[in-house]
Amino acid sequence: MVNSAAPVTAEPLAPAAVFDWLDQAADLRAAAGLTRTLRSRPAEDPVLDLAGNDYLGLVRHPAVTRAAADAALRWGGGATGSRLVTGTTALHTELERELADFCGAEAALVFSSGYAANLAALTALTDPDTLIVSDAYNHASLIDGCRLSRSQVHRAPHDDPAAVAEVLAARTQPRALVVSDSVFSVDGNAARVGELSAAARAHGAALLIDDAHGLGVLGPGGSGAVAAAGLAGAPDTVATVTLSKSLGSQGGAVVGPRRVIRHLTETARTFIFDTGLAPAAAGAALAALRLLRAEPERAERAREVARLLSAQLTAAGLRASTPDAAVVSVRAPGPEAAVAWAADCRTAGLAVGCFRPPSVPDGISRLRLTARGDLTDAQIAHAVDVIRRTAPLG
Amino acid sequence: MVNSAAPVTAEPLAPAAVFDWLDQAADLRAAAGLTRTLRSRPAEDPVLDLAGNDYLGLVRHPAVTRAAADAALRWGGGATGSRLVTGTTALHTELERELADFCGAEAALVFSSGYAANLAALTALTDPDTLIVSDAYNHASLIDGCRLSRSQVHRAPHDDPAAVAEVLAARTQPRALVVSDSVFSVDGNAARVGELSAAARAHGAALLIDDAHGLGVLGPGGSGAVAAAGLAGAPDTVATVTLSKSLGSQGGAVVGPRRVIRHLTETARTFIFDTGLAPAAAGAALAALRLLRAEPERAERAREVARLLSAQLTAAGLRASTPDAAVVSVRAPGPEAAVAWAADCRTAGLAVGCFRPPSVPDGISRLRLTARGDLTDAQIAHAVDVIRRTAPLG
Repeated sequence: MVNSAAPVTAEPLAPAAVFDWLDQAADLRAAAGLTRTLRSRPAEDPVLDLAGNDYLGLVRHPAVTRAAADAALRWGGGATGSRLVTGTTALHTELERELADFCGAEAALVFSSGYAANLAALTALTDPDTLIVSDAYNHASLIDGCRLSRSQVHRAPHDDPAAVAEVLAARTQPRALVVSDSVFSVDGNAARVGELSAAARAHGAALLIDDAHGLGVLGPGGSGAVAAAGLAGAPDTVATVTLSKSLGSQGGAVVGPRRVIRHLTETARTFIFDTGLAPAAAGAALAALRLLRAEPERAERAREVARLLSAQLTAAGLRASTPDAAVVSVRAPGPEAAVAWAADCRTAGLAVGCFRPPSVPDGISRLRLTARGDLTDAQIAHAVDVIRRTAPLG
Repeated sequence: MVNSAAPVTAEPLAPAAVFDWLDQAADLRAAAGLTRTLRSRPAEDPVLDLAGNDYLGLVRHPAVTRAAADAALRWGGGATGSRLVTGTTALHTELERELADFCGAEAALVFSSGYAANLAALTALTDPDTLIVSDAYNHASLIDGCRLSRSQVHRAPHDDPAAVAEVLAARTQPRALVVSDSVFSVDGNAARVGELSAAARAHGAALLIDDAHGLGVLGPGGSGAVAAAGLAGAPDTVATVTLSKSLGSQGGAVVGPRRVIRHLTETARTFIFDTGLAPAAAGAALAALRLLRAEPERAERAREVARLLSAQLTAAGLRASTPDAAVVSVRAPGPEAAVAWAADCRTAGLAVGCFRPPSVPDGISRLRLTARGDLTDAQIAHAVDVIRRTAPLG
């Protein structure tokens, strides 16, 4: 509705000036040292990549790329429509069955991204009678899901199951949903999923875990944080996962009780009104999943690489995080220093992530390293050496 | 924030009962005849498909599937990370350049879905000082983008540029964004993009056109509804497109002025916090785009097929829509009749879409037919014959 204040009566902006304000916003970002630019990488990149989220090193595994290629040749370049119309192939169904089985859940539903899966879970599993209790450090897609829901949202202190329990106890809504990342992307620290579940159960709430950084790394054979907490197959627990990290592909999924998956299938807007995942992505993810099931030691190796990286960086005098999964962060003195440090690493042939405000909830700038399970001990030592040599003073 | 009413003090739900309400919702949908189920299709499907959105029949074109396969083999199963970290390959950059060039725009930015592109455009190009004026029949992703924005949203009557102008004139916000689908998916009717632009310009507003169903079909050589309206390259006009319909792949893009694309790159959450589009999807879309540029008559043929379908269905006594693009709808007496009609078509070897509440904004149930540009005249006649023979009485 148009409000009742006086209408804008000045001369309308000329078409060429309509987006002038975007340039002003860009100037402000530049002045704050927060400009972001795209870097286009070549197919044969000599850089050692510790910046991507290819936790198991499967994205270029010949079985994964061959499966993607075969799926495209067999099924086509795209899914052709919404999953509810023409976009469900036998390949999607097979992937969903194997993913659910791997996670010990009744069912799974695949989306075109983890972002879409999170929006679906948060909007379809809540209503105005639901209180959502969301960890303060949750991923942007969970926050957007909360905003799209019709529910009241309580932002709980980071990693604080006792605070979650208190909020649940004091609520007036008949329903509640507790929402948390399993592994927080910036530092790689894990949520206490078991304690969150206990808090939720003590107060009749459901639990939603975004296991984007846990699947393939945590739990038995990499089956994820929900399984690691002994909650596989639990009737009150739902996980979202991504196909684009450990599984070397693209897409996301919701994994959980059959009634939840049915509800999402029939009501979630980001499922109903989106084109199905491309067959090549479904094929790649399925091949990666089968590799992981055949070689479950890949998950343990990713965790081991993280421990080695953290220990060697700490021994070199750097402030590295203690990893719960396959991410290690190293603190930088400030955003400009972090950017310069990452650039110096790249010059030395090492790609690392660079996290700075506003992408870090606590405002602390860091390098972010992915502890890829396919790294050799020599590569780990080399990476640590580069990071040490390029470290800013102080 | 938890509100101040009395807390919920009853015995908490048992874990197994936490999602009981979803079953009750399913029962209500079933009672209303609105149950939806997934149908898994085989790779070699003998059915004639008029249900998908493969407007140009390119999804299984050998050049498209081969490009998808080659991209997966060359670049990997996924993009490995956010476009701002490791997820931009030279292939993404090439696709963005050619897409912008094809649409006559300065720049383009590719997303993992058209849904994500729409969320990005609506959240990043607006702020609390912006009024969004949104057509009442806009796609779900535009509506969700409006809800995620921090702006006041005015839902304008469907296809009513004069009403849009009135709302813009009466606004109190310094900025405004007019938002419309170019082609509305249900009936295939086109928005009056030129009139919307005139209304926006008269009042210093920007224009955002979702050209999901226009790209590849409308405009010179299929270059889209914005070009068809003479607005290609306009400094105040932004289009979102999809790679999953005419371009036979997956993903979406925003196409427009360079300053808009830069702003989205640096600030849009569904760009920054999502994994980049899989290389196979980028490769497939690029190959389809090149096919269309080499054979621009594909766009004209899709429009011709739509006119033929509509004319022959009308001649057969059915209530077919008059197509502006490559979609034709046929009215059904009600939702159950529409479902039965579509099922009878399928039994006869023809897949058609079935739209019914709540997916149709006006509550009218319909069959929805895609006028694929690769259909032969014999296939068109066969499809019309099947639809006529299976039509419900009355």
